[in-house]
Amino acid sequence: MKLASLKGGGRDGTLIVVDLDLSRYQPVPAIAPTLQRAIDDWTECAPELRKVYAALNEGIGNNALPFDPVACHSPLPRAYQWADGSAYINHVELVRKARGAELPAEFYRDPLMYQGGSDSFIGPRDPIVVPSADWGIDFEAEITVVTGDVPMGATAAECAAEIRLIMLVNDVSLRSLIPTELAKGFGFFQSKPASAFSPVAVTPEELGEAWRDCKLHLPLRVELNDKPFGRPNAGTDMTFDFSQLIAHAARTRELEAGSIVGSGTGGLCGGDFPADP
Amino acid sequence: MKLASLKGGGRDGTLIVVDLDLSRYQPVPAIAPTLQRAIDDWTECAPELRKVYAALNEGIGNNALPFDPVACHSPLPRAYQWADGSAYINHVELVRKARGAELPAEFYRDPLMYQGGSDSFIGPRDPIVVPSADWGIDFEAEITVVTGDVPMGATAAECAAEIRLIMLVNDVSLRSLIPTELAKGFGFFQSKPASAFSPVAVTPEELGEAWRDCKLHLPLRVELNDKPFGRPNAGTDMTFDFSQLIAHAARTRELEAGSIVGSGTGGLCGGDFPADP
Repeated sequence: MKLASLKGGGRDGTLIVVDLDLSRYQPVPAIAPTLQRAIDDWTECAPELRKVYAALNEGIGNNALPFDPVACHSPLPRAYQWADGSAYINHVELVRKARGAELPAEFYRDPLMYQGGSDSFIGPRDPIVVPSADWGIDFEAEITVVTGDVPMGATAAECAAEIRLIMLVNDVSLRSLIPTELAKGFGFFQSKPASAFSPVAVTPEELGEAWRDCKLHLPLRVELNDKPFGRPNAGTDMTFDFSQLIAHAARTRELEAGSIVGSGTGGLCGGDFPADP
Repeated sequence: MKLASLKGGGRDGTLIVVDLDLSRYQPVPAIAPTLQRAIDDWTECAPELRKVYAALNEGIGNNALPFDPVACHSPLPRAYQWADGSAYINHVELVRKARGAELPAEFYRDPLMYQGGSDSFIGPRDPIVVPSADWGIDFEAEITVVTGDVPMGATAAECAAEIRLIMLVNDVSLRSLIPTELAKGFGFFQSKPASAFSPVAVTPEELGEAWRDCKLHLPLRVELNDKPFGRPNAGTDMTFDFSQLIAHAARTRELEAGSIVGSGTGGLCGGDFPADP
């Protein structure tokens, strides 16, 4: 099943079901007005949403409309939790080497994760606004999942069962602000501004065999200013799978439904490219 | 005006208006079902809520009910943003000295702030659950504000105008997890579990002269296990006021309505007290 949120209808947008080939969609106000609401009541809403998805794909009903990703907000235009891991430890090792720092051995056992801000995401096709090009704006292509309710201390197996949706994210970074901010010792804040997610979120079963072992085994195709930049397989070199990342996030707290957990980037950041949109 | 959220009615609780002396309350479903909804549409909702508050205090209407803080959730049971500053730099200096670290001079010019998790707060009078006493559970007594929509790059004066509500918070910390986590370089995550806020949130005008210069000039009374622990004046030694803290948070991103910004603690943390609730 594919879900998205149209802009308009309020701060959380308007939930829609999108068909298999991303050509048509249908609003579902009678099931849930927003994606957060559907996630809040997933047990009740998901079966109803799946019926709409099946009908859309069979061409039943004549109230479907043409789908345009430009009309979409991030699937969760604002969320309650955005926790971004660094699951591709080889990438972390390279980044640290580039700034002359060693990678501690325990990084291969204990996931690295930062607490992101989630109150206001960027629309998938919207401009990414940065007041100063000197701040070193950069992208990071990542996979993310949206969870259901995860109890504190849940095991990785329990966390795996709470993966509701999969999205892509552009984890926007302001490289020039990072060294000073990390030196202050409290992690990222100004150097990690709002992120932009893919226009569509999909359920795990939508990905078939490509979703296994809580990893997405598909190429992550990235373009920079309309030119191909890279397409590594997102399932390769992922030291921690999503069940382990969620379990790390939930070790000392519960995660409420609609929490977004990210994989970190597998090397797909731009580095020092010109801050030309 | 005093606002609170009763448990029940959904994940965001049920918005109520509480009278001046915290004795009676009234639900306001016709104005806004939840506090987040009221903050989302503050221009429309605030005047209506103020009318209810005035009527409650004048004893008009007979549908008011006895107020019990035990029945309350945190005013925002879940929020989209929780950014905690360290405005009491003298406290930061003491904490750093205790672990043998120097305080950089720029800390007195550039606020220290960490990105907190906000998807699931603890109820004001609920138990604070920690799976292991070895994690060094501790409290931090702080002042926080709830903002309206703050544009990216807003000045401190513009931020001051967006302060909607003031709350207290117990910023729960797991002291034993902090050194290892901060050494990883990405800030707090597991070491800052869910926080608990005061049962009631108040508007700035409710505080009269005690709210000035975007600081709360009142004693912050703290008890530990029913014994007095301290009562420093929250307006004293606050290096950065709330308008400056909000401006710091909004420098590279907009803040969406309902964002919570904290002052950090002014020395009111427990240190190595037994983890006995």
